[in-house]
Amino acid sequence: MFDSGVGGLTVLNALMTALPHESFLYLGDTARVPYGSKPLAMVAGFASEITAELITRGVKAVVIACNTASAASLPSLAREVAVPVWGVVEPGVAAARASVGSTGSAKRVAVLGTEATIRTRAYQDRLEAAGIATWSRACPLFVPIVEEGASDSTIATLVTEHYLGDMPPVDAVILGCTHYPLLKPVLRQVLGNDIVLIDSSEVVASTVAAGLRDSGLLRQAGDGHTSERLSYLVTGDVGTFMNTAVRLGGQNAPATRVDLGARRQPAAAPGKDAGSRADRLVS
Amino acid sequence: MFDSGVGGLTVLNALMTALPHESFLYLGDTARVPYGSKPLAMVAGFASEITAELITRGVKAVVIACNTASAASLPSLAREVAVPVWGVVEPGVAAARASVGSTGSAKRVAVLGTEATIRTRAYQDRLEAAGIATWSRACPLFVPIVEEGASDSTIATLVTEHYLGDMPPVDAVILGCTHYPLLKPVLRQVLGNDIVLIDSSEVVASTVAAGLRDSGLLRQAGDGHTSERLSYLVTGDVGTFMNTAVRLGGQNAPATRVDLGARRQPAAAPGKDAGSRADRLVS
Repeated sequence: MFDSGVGGLTVLNALMTALPHESFLYLGDTARVPYGSKPLAMVAGFASEITAELITRGVKAVVIACNTASAASLPSLAREVAVPVWGVVEPGVAAARASVGSTGSAKRVAVLGTEATIRTRAYQDRLEAAGIATWSRACPLFVPIVEEGASDSTIATLVTEHYLGDMPPVDAVILGCTHYPLLKPVLRQVLGNDIVLIDSSEVVASTVAAGLRDSGLLRQAGDGHTSERLSYLVTGDVGTFMNTAVRLGGQNAPATRVDLGARRQPAAAPGKDAGSRADRLVS
Repeated sequence: MFDSGVGGLTVLNALMTALPHESFLYLGDTARVPYGSKPLAMVAGFASEITAELITRGVKAVVIACNTASAASLPSLAREVAVPVWGVVEPGVAAARASVGSTGSAKRVAVLGTEATIRTRAYQDRLEAAGIATWSRACPLFVPIVEEGASDSTIATLVTEHYLGDMPPVDAVILGCTHYPLLKPVLRQVLGNDIVLIDSSEVVASTVAAGLRDSGLLRQAGDGHTSERLSYLVTGDVGTFMNTAVRLGGQNAPATRVDLGARRQPAAAPGKDAGSRADRLVS
């Protein structure tokens, strides 16, 4: 799985709980974080490049644990590669549909996300196709606020009030970015305690578990492990990633710096890293 | 010259005015923007890598048009390479010293910058060594606000009030990030019209001009040009860079995508690009 940085660790934790016999390789693209303010084509390029890197390292399936990358690259990326690829948007839509139910009255769901995610209309189009009205708002300052550790500051409250001050009454709010669950306290403070806040990580985990089972890829309890339960790859500074990861509830595990640029030049040193990397192949 | 993205274009414009006979190569590292929230060691690595790239392309001098990269990599980077390297911190300090004058009364200067720039104390230590008291504040949300085009929004005002609400009386404010001049209107609105706002781009230009002259590198009016007056290199999406560049007052010029990762593998394709890149060598 991969994310632009540490936001996807909420999804990783849910997946590790749901898939106790699988091994995980998590790539955090911290050198290029954030994705949400960058052009969709650039983010789609990052997603392709990282997916190719993960496949080269032997993964049997890929989870895009980032809303912006999911919205920018799916479903086309899934058609281009030989392993299953899941994102976080479809499961989030499914969770929203389940939460508002199917009874008669008109329903409306608010979608919060990065500028890029909102621009794709990945959530809005799917919800509207299911007969659910949407209200959406790009919240470009939420990720920097979380990344700077200011999630419970006055700034977070002011910025939340600014973004959501004109939100109409809704039945649920999709937290369409893996960083946003860390803003739940301030969102509850501004929106009230009764609002349904949809964090898709649980639904992603059950979607992936069902998908692996259906395609015969699910590892069973009796199967021996061939690799670490969890390894991290980081495009930026490894120490900083680990500090932030552990602070945000991520598990401790071996972390290695990866140079995606070098990987794009397969002729440079053929097979050079194969030996040292074999122990980090997944399943 | 280089910057994490488009912020350094204010410095580029000042340099092009001060150096009418030079050719310029501007590298915007938009794939990895922003620098200010990333670890100093990572930013110093980016600065080394980009400087090596520019030198490979034949530049005779390098200007780091980014406060975070200047603070993180200078003076050590300048000692490691064979061409002169200037940053924006020293000129900013010189401008602040000039603006507060040398008369008897105690002086105090406020320094605003990214988290990384403030953490280095690059401005504070130099000012305090000159007998000027400092007050500093990291303003991590200013760059995303400018990049999202929200410089004149209510959010910009609220965030500025939050950061500067407890600022003591000062004689001048250093805008210690090349994005911040775009917030001058909101800073004046919050701080009043009488405050001296120090934007170092003019001083950087005169520092570089004097440095080139003193080292015999200054191109004269009669010298023929061997290359374009200005070319851009971009690590991210070229079209987006150009749109933003022109919107922020940058000049139109040829722009090329550059892959810094590939450049780190010189054995991959020796000399492959030398021919096609020769026309973009600077002076």
